This record gives sequence, C-alpha cells and structure tokens, in this order.
Amino acid sequence: MKRIAVVGTGLVGTGWVVVFARAGHDVSMYDAVPLAAESALARIDDILLDLAERDLIVESPSIIKARVTLASSLDEACDGAVYVQESGPERVEAKRDLFVALEQAADRETVLASSSSGITASRFAEDMETRDRCIVAHPVNPPYLVPVVEISPAPFTSRETVAVTKQLMDDVKQVPVMLEREIDGFVLNRLQGALLHEAFRLVEDGVALPEDIDKTVRDGLGLRWSFMGPFETIDLNAPGGVRDYVERLGPLYLELMQQRSAPRPWTGTLLDRVEADRRRHLNVDDIGERAAWRDRRLMDLLSHKASYAAKSGSGENS
Amino acid sequence: MKRIAVVGTGLVGTGWVVVFARAGHDVSMYDAVPLAAESALARIDDILLDLAERDLIVESPSIIKARVTLASSLDEACDGAVYVQESGPERVEAKRDLFVALEQAADRETVLASSSSGITASRFAEDMETRDRCIVAHPVNPPYLVPVVEISPAPFTSRETVAVTKQLMDDVKQVPVMLEREIDGFVLNRLQGALLHEAFRLVEDGVALPEDIDKTVRDGLGLRWSFMGPFETIDLNAPGGVRDYVERLGPLYLELMQQRSAPRPWTGTLLDRVEADRRRHLNVDDIGERAAWRDRRLMDLLSHKASYAAKSGSGENS
Repeated sequence: MKRIAVVGTGLVGTGWVVVFARAGHDVSMYDAVPLAAESALARIDDILLDLAERDLIVESPSIIKARVTLASSLDEACDGAVYVQESGPERVEAKRDLFVALEQAADRETVLASSSSGITASRFAEDMETRDRCIVAHPVNPPYLVPVVEISPAPFTSRETVAVTKQLMDDVKQVPVMLEREIDGFVLNRLQGALLHEAFRLVEDGVALPEDIDKTVRDGLGLRWSFMGPFETIDLNAPGGVRDYVERLGPLYLELMQQRSAPRPWTGTLLDRVEADRRRHLNVDDIGERAAWRDRRLMDLLSHKASYAAKSGSGENS
Repeated sequence: MKRIAVVGTGLVGTGWVVVFARAGHDVSMYDAVPLAAESALARIDDILLDLAERDLIVESPSIIKARVTLASSLDEACDGAVYVQESGPERVEAKRDLFVALEQAADRETVLASSSSGITASRFAEDMETRDRCIVAHPVNPPYLVPVVEISPAPFTSRETVAVTKQLMDDVKQVPVMLEREIDGFVLNRLQGALLHEAFRLVEDGVALPEDIDKTVRDGLGLRWSFMGPFETIDLNAPGGVRDYVERLGPLYLELMQQRSAPRPWTGTLLDRVEADRRRHLNVDDIGERAAWRDRRLMDLLSHKASYAAKSGSGENS
C-alpha cells in the first residue's frame, strides 16, 4: 500500500483516483478549485456503485472510498506521496507552472507523472532542477474502464522513474505501453488520428456516410482489434503470418495511401455533414446520457473480457 | 426461403455458405476444383458445431447443413438461384472471366455479387451485356462471425440490384454498409490501411514495439470502437459533441498528420522487426491454432454483444 497524490480532479483526475484506490492505495486528491474537488468526491461514489454492480471491484465501495482524502493544499496532497499523478489543463504553460510547484511540494524521491494527452515531458519539465523524476503517464478516459496507459519518458527522465511508473501501473492492473522515444500525440492519438483522417476523407469524397463508417468499424474492424490489436490481426490473416500478409497486400495498401497524400483539415461543410449525421442519431443534450451508456457498455465488455480470460486460462498475451 | 449459389469455396466462400444456410436459405456451392468443394463441406461441419456450442445458431447443425448442396457445374449451381455470391481469386482477369461465365449460367434476373475485397465492379463487369445486375458485396473473414458487408455498386449497377443485395444482407443478419461511390479498397481496408501505415511508421521511427502498439489498440482504442465506431467515439468525447471535439482537437490531429505526409512501404528491416516481434509471441506453425482461438474469441464476443443488446433493449443504433 502506497500513498499517491492526484492533482487536478476533472474527469481524468477523478478516474485516476478510482484506479489507485480500487487497487488498495491511499489517495490524496487536490484541485486548485475547491468546488471541483468536492464534486469529484460525489462522482467517485457513483462510479464505485456502477463498478460494484458489475462485479468489477472486489471490495465494497465504502472500503475503497475510505482510502480517498481531500487535501486543502498542494503541500498537503503531496505529503508522504511516493507518486504524483498530475491531471491539470492540457496547456504547456499550465503544466510547466504546476510542475514547478510540485517540485517544491513533493519529496525529492517522489515521481511526478503527467496525464498529458499530447504534450511531451520535454516541453514542460526541461528546465526543472529535478527533471529526472518527471514523466508522462497518459491514460484513456475513463482510466478505470480503459486500461491502457502510455508511458513516455523525456530523454532526461531517469531509468528509476520509468521503472517505478511502469511497476505502479502493473500493480494497479492498468496496461502500460512503453514509448521508446518522445513524439507529439504519443501512440494512441496518432493511431486514432490516422484512422479519423481517412474516415473524414471518405465522408468528404462522398464515399460513405459517417454512420456507415461507424458500422464498418463497430461490426467489422473493431471486433478483432478489441482483443488482438492491428499487428496480431494481420499476422493471423495469412498462412505464413505478417510477412506473408505484407508481401500479398502491402503494395495494395501503399497504393491506397498514395492516392491521397496531403492530410486535409476537418472544417466547413465537411464538419457540417458529420455533425448533421451524428445529430440525426443523438441530440446534443443527450450526449451525457449516452456517455453514461458507453461507460456501462465498457464495464460489460470488460466483465466479458475478464470472464473469457478466466475461462480460457488467459489465451491473451498481454 | 431463397436459393443462393456460392461460387468459389475457399475460406470466404465457405463462410458465406454458413451465413446463408444459417438464415434458412438453400445454398448450392460450386468450386472449379472439386476437392476444394469437398473439403469445404467438412469445414462447414466444424464451424456449425462451434457455433452451436456457443448458442450462436438456433437450429441444429444437421438441419442447417441439410440446406447445403454440392453442384458439379456452374450451370447446376446457378439453377434456380436468385442471388450468386462469387468468391473466387482476387484478380481482375479471373473475376472478369468468371462473371462472363456466370452471365451465361444464371437466369437474367439473378443478382451477381462479388466478394472482391478491393477490386471495384467497374473493373471486372464493365463490358458485360447484363452488367446492371453486377455488384460487390465484400465480407470480412469469417463472415459468419464478423457481420459487416460492404455493398459497392458500379455506376452501371441498377437500383434494383442494390436493393435486392441490401435486403438479402439484412435478412441474413449481416450488417450492410452502403458505399455511395466506388473507390479502390472500399471503406474497411482504407481505414485499416490508414491505421496500419501509422502503426508501421511508429515502429520504423523507434517509438514503440509492435506488441505495445497492439496493446494500445486492444486495451485502449479498440474497446470503444468495437461497439461505437470512430465518429460516435469522438462525438461522446466533448460536451458539445463532434463539432466541439473537432474545434478542440482538429488542429492537433492535423499537425500530427502533417508531420508525416508521404506514406512509406512496409519493407526491409522494418518488416524484419515487425515479423521478429510477432514470432516472439507466436510460432509461424501455430498460426492456424491461434486463428481458431481468434474465431472462438470472436464467437464469445458476439454472444456478449448479443446478450447485451437483449438485456438493454438494444441501446445500439445499428
């Protein structure tokens, strides 16, 4: 059992509190806006109830909740913490200022990790005195339902910091993905961006409607990807594995991509069309409700994956 | 109940036979190589047993199998068929020759659909006398587990042909995706290609290992995509929906893609590295066994999705 500080209690920070407390750690949470921290506490109750209903937590919500405390200052939040998960605004200046403050508040050995979804640690921690303990641990929202965490050290981050961060993510049952070098957007958003660019193009070029593109992924590509990922998928799609697959289909894929080189912005009438299509399916006022549906759906999908892993003696090489 | 002909009984053709027979149709199957058709019959038995074990078919395997007959000629296969699903080799010349033969063998009103995974109908049916009844209905392998079917008419395909094909796919519980105009690779493989190009680049540039990219999708992006698709995913990721999301993140995604414009081939040491990574996880001789695991895993995922839809009164807008 460790003491963890979560600084910034928006959607992402709140999610992290659940991840750490669920795994048995004491969590001290802090937000510069006191009301934000208060409302986060209420949201944590709701999340724990939903997780309990689906058997995704082994302890009772009250036992888990008892590990969470609200700190009234950054110093109090960091007191005794071995690891700080920063989840503030996604702006370079904001992160830079917050990390300078964290450097003062936390013990010298404490790891300072950022939830940054695209800004590399080099860009906000470069000038710090103790920059060797700074790192990015980027989760997907909500982290208690989507387990992947991208771990992206700067060139100046120490091996020890990387090791502690990876070990903690393993301990709390997240799935750490190690980046070998820094890149804007990290891996997840670059993959998502590449697929989205092609999706927006297909709409712009009048090939398919957004809803049909969603069907193509939801009832096609996304099924295999949800338990194998893209490389294992193609590795199983040719008798001789990935090399065999690439030798058969690589030239075709290259040609498809060469037909459309320069990426185009998602603006103007294109965005109008995509929005109109989505709004036909979902009123903008119902997005919150549908997002709650998505989270319940993710919980059920995770229960399913967990029961499968138990049943099959874990055929999945994670 | 209709009579359907499946011509070409490799993996894809065999899968189609299961789809049509499972839905109650009589299926006449034919392959130019008699042995291929014989071994397909045996494979159908295995597939139906697996499906029965997971409650993915309501009738017994023997009842379904009784609807399948082996034809000894193209004429016999097409006799009385209202719809032909061509699943021969993926080469323009081969498809062109086969379609000319089908034009002779089938009644004038019979729809001639191709399983072509990337070649448009314009390229193989343009010169036919009755080209108005030719169309592409591209499945994902195996079609009895992955329901999406891309329906791509040529400019000369009649509305009637499109309507009959879509209706049949709805009837047999596949998920038809309508392409509004022809494009090489259709939608599914263009989306897959876009994501794969980014994935190969990230490996080539030393950012992440293939196995970590697989994790990023399997335990991250792929979870939401397996029941929502990419547009609904981002629509729920900003309080104001897709426009709000794009206004916040569109410039970032554009910048990420502009950093790497020209697509690169998947060759040389890059392919060596990807292959070496996959072979660390899976011996090439074990690919068949792992593919069988994948199919069982897909069956369980489909059972899960079906039970969820039943439980929730179908919250999924399909």
